[in-house]
Amino acid sequence: MKVKAGELLDKINYPSDLKLLSEVELEQLSHELRQYIIDVVSVHGGHFAASLGVVELTVALHYALNTPYDQLVWDVGHQAYGHKILTGRRSRFHTNRLYNGISGFPKRSESEYDTFGVGHSSTSISAALGMAVASRAKGETDRQHVAVIGDGAMTAGLAFEALNHGGIENSNLLVILNDNCMSIDPNVGALKEYLTTITTSRPYNRFRDDISHVLGKISELGPNAHQAIKKIEKSIKGTLLKESNFFEALNFRYFGPVDGHDVKQLVKVIKDLSKIPGPKLLHCVTVKGKGYALAEKDQTKWHAPGLFDKITGEIKKSVSDKPQAPKYQDVFGHTIVELAEANPKIMGVTPAMPSGSSMNIMMKAMPARAFDVGIAEQHAVTFSAGLASQGMVPFCNIYSSFMQRAYDQVIHDVAIQKLNVVFCLDRAGLAGADGATHHGAYDLAYMRCIPNMIVTAPMDEEELRNLMYTAQQDGMGPFSIRYPRGNGVMPNWKLPMKALKIGKGRKVAEGVDVAILTIGHIGNEVSKALNLLSAEGINPAHYDMRFLKPIDEDMLHEVFSKFKKVITVEDGCIQGGMGTAVLEFMADNRYSATVVRLGIPDRFVDHGDQNELWAECGYDAASVVAEVKKLSIKMIAGSIAS
Amino acid sequence: MKVKAGELLDKINYPSDLKLLSEVELEQLSHELRQYIIDVVSVHGGHFAASLGVVELTVALHYALNTPYDQLVWDVGHQAYGHKILTGRRSRFHTNRLYNGISGFPKRSESEYDTFGVGHSSTSISAALGMAVASRAKGETDRQHVAVIGDGAMTAGLAFEALNHGGIENSNLLVILNDNCMSIDPNVGALKEYLTTITTSRPYNRFRDDISHVLGKISELGPNAHQAIKKIEKSIKGTLLKESNFFEALNFRYFGPVDGHDVKQLVKVIKDLSKIPGPKLLHCVTVKGKGYALAEKDQTKWHAPGLFDKITGEIKKSVSDKPQAPKYQDVFGHTIVELAEANPKIMGVTPAMPSGSSMNIMMKAMPARAFDVGIAEQHAVTFSAGLASQGMVPFCNIYSSFMQRAYDQVIHDVAIQKLNVVFCLDRAGLAGADGATHHGAYDLAYMRCIPNMIVTAPMDEEELRNLMYTAQQDGMGPFSIRYPRGNGVMPNWKLPMKALKIGKGRKVAEGVDVAILTIGHIGNEVSKALNLLSAEGINPAHYDMRFLKPIDEDMLHEVFSKFKKVITVEDGCIQGGMGTAVLEFMADNRYSATVVRLGIPDRFVDHGDQNELWAECGYDAASVVAEVKKLSIKMIAGSIAS
Repeated sequence: MKVKAGELLDKINYPSDLKLLSEVELEQLSHELRQYIIDVVSVHGGHFAASLGVVELTVALHYALNTPYDQLVWDVGHQAYGHKILTGRRSRFHTNRLYNGISGFPKRSESEYDTFGVGHSSTSISAALGMAVASRAKGETDRQHVAVIGDGAMTAGLAFEALNHGGIENSNLLVILNDNCMSIDPNVGALKEYLTTITTSRPYNRFRDDISHVLGKISELGPNAHQAIKKIEKSIKGTLLKESNFFEALNFRYFGPVDGHDVKQLVKVIKDLSKIPGPKLLHCVTVKGKGYALAEKDQTKWHAPGLFDKITGEIKKSVSDKPQAPKYQDVFGHTIVELAEANPKIMGVTPAMPSGSSMNIMMKAMPARAFDVGIAEQHAVTFSAGLASQGMVPFCNIYSSFMQRAYDQVIHDVAIQKLNVVFCLDRAGLAGADGATHHGAYDLAYMRCIPNMIVTAPMDEEELRNLMYTAQQDGMGPFSIRYPRGNGVMPNWKLPMKALKIGKGRKVAEGVDVAILTIGHIGNEVSKALNLLSAEGINPAHYDMRFLKPIDEDMLHEVFSKFKKVITVEDGCIQGGMGTAVLEFMADNRYSATVVRLGIPDRFVDHGDQNELWAECGYDAASVVAEVKKLSIKMIAGSIAS
Repeated sequence: MKVKAGELLDKINYPSDLKLLSEVELEQLSHELRQYIIDVVSVHGGHFAASLGVVELTVALHYALNTPYDQLVWDVGHQAYGHKILTGRRSRFHTNRLYNGISGFPKRSESEYDTFGVGHSSTSISAALGMAVASRAKGETDRQHVAVIGDGAMTAGLAFEALNHGGIENSNLLVILNDNCMSIDPNVGALKEYLTTITTSRPYNRFRDDISHVLGKISELGPNAHQAIKKIEKSIKGTLLKESNFFEALNFRYFGPVDGHDVKQLVKVIKDLSKIPGPKLLHCVTVKGKGYALAEKDQTKWHAPGLFDKITGEIKKSVSDKPQAPKYQDVFGHTIVELAEANPKIMGVTPAMPSGSSMNIMMKAMPARAFDVGIAEQHAVTFSAGLASQGMVPFCNIYSSFMQRAYDQVIHDVAIQKLNVVFCLDRAGLAGADGATHHGAYDLAYMRCIPNMIVTAPMDEEELRNLMYTAQQDGMGPFSIRYPRGNGVMPNWKLPMKALKIGKGRKVAEGVDVAILTIGHIGNEVSKALNLLSAEGINPAHYDMRFLKPIDEDMLHEVFSKFKKVITVEDGCIQGGMGTAVLEFMADNRYSATVVRLGIPDRFVDHGDQNELWAECGYDAASVVAEVKKLSIKMIAGSIAS
């Protein structure tokens, strides 16, 4: 569906067109850009509120700077829709996040204006600093490097590490702090409170005003006051300006706060700042969802609302006659509360994903026992280890791809000490529209090599609940449970829970000739495949491994004793994952069989629906059917030949 | 060798004994404790300067607090020797870091006074906060939780994430900033400069003094000045005290700086602070190496000097008639300079390991092109990605176990974008005396599953140089080279460099019956084994894989066509590593053979000499000999039977 752009926007394909506008026209353009985002996202979907919040900033940056020679790095990238529209992608913007469409994030392969691929938070300052240092080495002294980073992203350690280094490199680095008090959920932490103090009561600026006012008064008191004034001035210069500000302490020159919706002022400030060498930070206050009243009011809901009626604000739900199975994240959210009611040792920890993980259910029900620690995966894990060292049982819920941020903490702080931290890895497997940065492709491989770690994945809601129940039992040690984005398969999922035996899988279907081993929800695709095959008289066996580590050796002895053809299916990378563990077992136990491993191939997979991507990667139901037939034909051919 | 402790120290086995001393005696005890550390470390080895720097702090903490009920977390743990000696381990202290001796780091399994196992930097605040929150949940309102963290460790993002969360949790958390301006090398970064400003010119305190002095003067000016004074006072209270300090901005009450060698003052301050609820930070200034003049003067050299004559300060070198092969790290250090002289795109990046990685050679030779970014592995990688996005070729040198800290950045910022960052993973494999936290056990497994990544390991110095040469060629993409702690095997290593073919290994020795595949330096143990076996008329073939990814498929076809018995040997975890890659190849290509995988087993390995540990794990030369014989006998038995 073609969405019409406003009169000014319609003429702008690249920033060079933008530069032909007068400063006065920028307000109208901002209005049209905002409207265009609303129009397109409401009918095509995508992230919403973040981009609305930086419309003026986006226009001002491309107007004031010489992009792409001057380099912009958008942190995370949810807010970069305006940037995409102004840099050659307006006509393709309706394909945003769709299979074979443009990416929801800036991406180097998509445009020279996308200087650095993003997705995970808090990389922008490090990347822009690297660019700035490279420019310095090349003698490009006029080149600007700008990182636009939210106050939520600023809480991650990576951002702090970059500030600490950036403060001592004399390079053309401008950090724009996009302060809207939000991550996906409201931002939390001491830094956020500090920023709020600056922007609301503005004591920093008021203090300066007060002092100069007072100094004026004192000087009226006569010549005796002269020395006093000098001393105060010197102290203010020496201390207050250098140290009174968090960012000044890190040797960044601090400017602001400025109104992030005043496009003309932004143009002036950005132009001015580009003349100042060295590390600088512009504190820019914006409203997430700006210009769409409902989004301004409920910013979490409107972070990525799905399709909606832009007039009424009604969010469209998919209609179904069947009772809907719940999202896995909600099964987690309700089940942890149920478990925590019975077990006072259970605590909940999320790094800035209360609504994304459904930890908000526990945060509401038991606020003293559930913690949003900010965008801080590393701390989330080591904090959980601290809790566990005192006998608590923390459930630390982190998306699979974000858990990569805390890999050392999982090994060093949890696994070595064999602490009972339960890792719930949401968005495991191919995660859909967010693409390569957000797929949970590697966790089975990177968790499996860690000693002491129990590695599991449930095939359905009941198994998820039982694994959670199992994990919180006394003395269990490090325990990880991975499950996918999206909905499960059991409309009636609130079954009584029970403990599962560690390292034991289950036989889902008896069968002959071929054994299919699966782990996790992808087993449901295999169930579909078995139904299709059964109609043709082909009946492979199906085993749900449930535990990747310790792996069910009894079951594998059974499999390799009975079958010479084995297919393994997992929603994870095929190098080092479950299929590989099966090969290791086979080699160690001197079995011989044909083993075909299905899973995510050895390349980065772009965005699309999960079903589209499973098909592309060759492990949806249809692919499994084809693979079984291929093996069966070989078998028949083999038996005829022999 | 039994080292005698001083008169007071000799009576102290546990903190309960310490508490019987008068405050006056604490200085003498500190003196004796320092002397004891010098006496033992000089003859038994270990880390040195860090523990000397916190002798008084250690005594004061155990004297003022009620340990182990009150909980101390020592960040990193190099500085915890005094703590170990005072908490039940004086008599075993001479076994420090030796095989089967006590650990060089605090370890939960060793003592209840070791509340949290450490080794990697910057975990202490997160862990102590977890403990404090657990205590709060249990109603233990009188319990203290103290994190002792160096200014170097404070630069890591994890520490910042913990401060950001700790600032909003009302729990009994005291952070003691042990400010000695050092990591192993001199500390770097903006925060360090900020702390130095506070402690040297003390403008924070001076400002307050100045203001009150000035206010006194103004008040002499008469009643008109009254309102002016009020206003200034209000501003100072409202702004300066709340915001003028980096840590106050994060809602920690800041105290200090105090002299970290004044044990009586420390006792008083710690007692006072334990009465103040909520998050607090004590800025404690110490001298690394305090009390041993040579160590105070060259703190990097005396971080872990090895054995030395405590009177003359002469550091003992191992004596050898043969010309010594160089350390791998020095081969790296000299080679990067050699390459960078020819290729202006090459840059060097180290996170706080200039001397440990020998990046200091390049930092000295080409200061504008080599960067110490502080203890900040995540930033080191993303900063490198930023450099590479502009066409630079950064060599990012990080110890294998520390690379776990930057796993997401390797995937998300480098591999997805296929940027030409060269990762040099030092201390790969079992790293020796530092133990489980520092072994580089997992990198082959966690790097291998990343798409676009070239994964290599050299068998000797020449191969290391050639791999470095290969990696810096145009368009190479993400490239990792792992090598071990310690010395190589080639006294004459400065051979001309050449490009290696990507994904090609080499045959080290022709042979029959059994093929041994190795990757990296452990191939030299196999060469030793082959010499031993040859004497008995057993001659297996030996292949050096060189590339784990892409793996040499031609070579593997040759191996599996010719051999039915294969042994893989790697100095890395056997789950998911090189041997596993060989199994995957074998399955995918429908070969069948007996494959025995040797490597680090699925458990955490304690400290010891590398040779001791390789033997323990079953892949030193002797173990390989045994394994080959076992397979050969089976083969002979098999051929007789058939």
